[in-house]
Formats: sequence, C-alpha cells, structure tokens
Amino acid sequence: MGGLLGVGKTESMEKPVVRLAELEINPDQIRAYRAALKEEIEASIRSEPGVLTLYAVSVKEHPTEIRMFETYASSAAYEAHLQTAHFKKYKSETQTMVRSLRLIETEPILLGSKTHQH
Amino acid sequence: MGGLLGVGKTESMEKPVVRLAELEINPDQIRAYRAALKEEIEASIRSEPGVLTLYAVSVKEHPTEIRMFETYASSAAYEAHLQTAHFKKYKSETQTMVRSLRLIETEPILLGSKTHQH
Repeated sequence: MGGLLGVGKTESMEKPVVRLAELEINPDQIRAYRAALKEEIEASIRSEPGVLTLYAVSVKEHPTEIRMFETYASSAAYEAHLQTAHFKKYKSETQTMVRSLRLIETEPILLGSKTHQH
Repeated sequence: MGGLLGVGKTESMEKPVVRLAELEINPDQIRAYRAALKEEIEASIRSEPGVLTLYAVSVKEHPTEIRMFETYASSAAYEAHLQTAHFKKYKSETQTMVRSLRLIETEPILLGSKTHQH
C-alpha cells in the first residue's frame, strides 16, 4: 500500500515543509559539486530524523542544472537542518561552485508515495 | 535508517525515471483541477506498482503554479502509467484547465529518503 500525505490529513499535526531548489553550477566544478552534494544528502538522511527527502536530479542534457525536492517534517526540522555541521560544510565548500540558486517555498497539495511517510 | 537510491547503486537494475512537471492552471478552475489531480495521484499510487512518488505542490502565494516531482521504477513503468484509465481521465478532465505545461526530463543524482525505496 502506498502512503498518501495529504494536507487534509496533517491539519492536526506539524505540517511538512517542502522546498524546491534550482541551481546552476560552474561547468568545470560539476564533479566536485556533485560529490559535496551527495555527501551532504547522505549525512542529512542518516543523522536528521526530520529530513524526509532530499532528492537531487540534473536536467537531462544540462548536467550543470540541478533541481532539488526537499521535504522536512516541520519548519523546526528545516531550521535545525540549516544549523548542522554537514549543511554548513556543504554551503562553504560549494559557495564558489554555485553560479545561481533559486529557492522556491511551496504548499503541499498531495505527497503521494509508495513508501510510508514518517 | 534512510534509503539512498544512488545512480551508482542502480547500474545493474532498471534505472528509475524522474520527471518534473511545471503547470499553470486557470485561476477560476483551480479547485476542480486540484480535485482531479488528487484523484489521479491516489489511483496511481494505489494501483500501479511502478509509480514510486507523485508529489504535487503549489508555489507559495501562487496557488495556480503547480509543481510535480514524479518517480517511476523504470521507463516501462512510466510508459504504462500514461496508458492507464485514471491517467487518461485526468488528462481529459483537466485539458481546458491547464494554461501551460512544461515537462522536464532528469537524471537522478541521489534520491535520499527516510523511507525505503521499492
């Protein structure tokens, strides 16, 4: 069975935070950027209970265009994530690699997933 | 423990397909659109083993701007999804509601999730 995390179902709970990020990376630093990003994602998923998804993809045929789909259990979990050592390390390591960064705040409509949401 | 579905780990398996969609909905049809979208997501997650995530969000303060993050187990699962009765119903019901639709094909970098991927 699939898990369906609808806005209606979470009215009495802490509301999940979904954030999108669109990044453009310097072409000659894409390998280093991807390594730093993977390290940050692995550390976050492993050590932070409130980080539910950190999905990173690149746009097909445009490997320097990165898109992230990030889900946090609550706004407190999101704020805590920004203060972790691994996130700060990632931000400082990648500062000169990132040409542009657009963050998009969202309202979940329905987060349908084959796996159960925690 | 979290699940980490990296490209490296899936080299010997069918590769997951991740697609992004960006939609602009007619403002006076947003309620009907959201209802049709939720019905389509619920049916897909419930009945299609190869549909792993259908995450739908709207951009904060721009409720007519919809973003989707879609994960399929394989390209065959994605193609099968397009042929289902519930997807065809959604497409036909929402045809006049959607002002613009942009589909973005992607390459997964790392799909980090607190839940296990199937």
